[in-house]
Amino acid sequence: MEHELKEFIKKCDSAIKREDFDTLMNYYTEDAILVVKPGMIARGKEEIKKAFIAISKYFNNTLAPTQGEMIILEAGDTALVISQTLLDADKKDNEFAMERRATYVFKKNSQGEWLCAIDNSYGTELINK
Amino acid sequence: MEHELKEFIKKCDSAIKREDFDTLMNYYTEDAILVVKPGMIARGKEEIKKAFIAISKYFNNTLAPTQGEMIILEAGDTALVISQTLLDADKKDNEFAMERRATYVFKKNSQGEWLCAIDNSYGTELINK
Repeated sequence: MEHELKEFIKKCDSAIKREDFDTLMNYYTEDAILVVKPGMIARGKEEIKKAFIAISKYFNNTLAPTQGEMIILEAGDTALVISQTLLDADKKDNEFAMERRATYVFKKNSQGEWLCAIDNSYGTELINK
Repeated sequence: MEHELKEFIKKCDSAIKREDFDTLMNYYTEDAILVVKPGMIARGKEEIKKAFIAISKYFNNTLAPTQGEMIILEAGDTALVISQTLLDADKKDNEFAMERRATYVFKKNSQGEWLCAIDNSYGTELINK
């Protein structure tokens, strides 16, 4: 059986593809953050939803994320997921990498459900070697 | 003023350099994990302490970690730190990278103190592009 976080991330990717951002926001904590691009952060569900609407538009409403290789580092109610994130979109003049090594942090809530707290698809690329 | 997590990580690095692993263990959550090397994980303070003793020995008891560029992604009581981690040691035949882009996850406890929950100095190198 696949790890529950792998299934969870599939649901997130599916919601992004369908542009169902109300459903997507159910998968984030109240004080979650999203790294929109290096140096730009969306804080809280309202800002994150707006960012996803803008991101989808940027990708001509054809954005479809999927995950490749994935490592799940689980420590009690906290997990760090390191994932090969593949972005597909019908857009030629794109300035962003479509294949990333992302870092996602998840927290379990009091009902035992995982929620995304930190969504950073840029991974360690935010700093330069 | 520096971010409190930057100061906190300095204290961790100092404890590692001094090989003061009892003090170091105060900086981890009870169910923390340490990625000892790709594919090998230490779980909980007892295993993490043993791992640090072995790591220090491997580096001829001369290991001195410091941090370079650092990005702190804070979401409420959870933080992901992406850090350029520089390892210095008096050892020639070393099989590990001494300059890394690490990913550390911290949690705030009920006293408002940050503790390390996930210590992964290998960052996204755990998966291959």
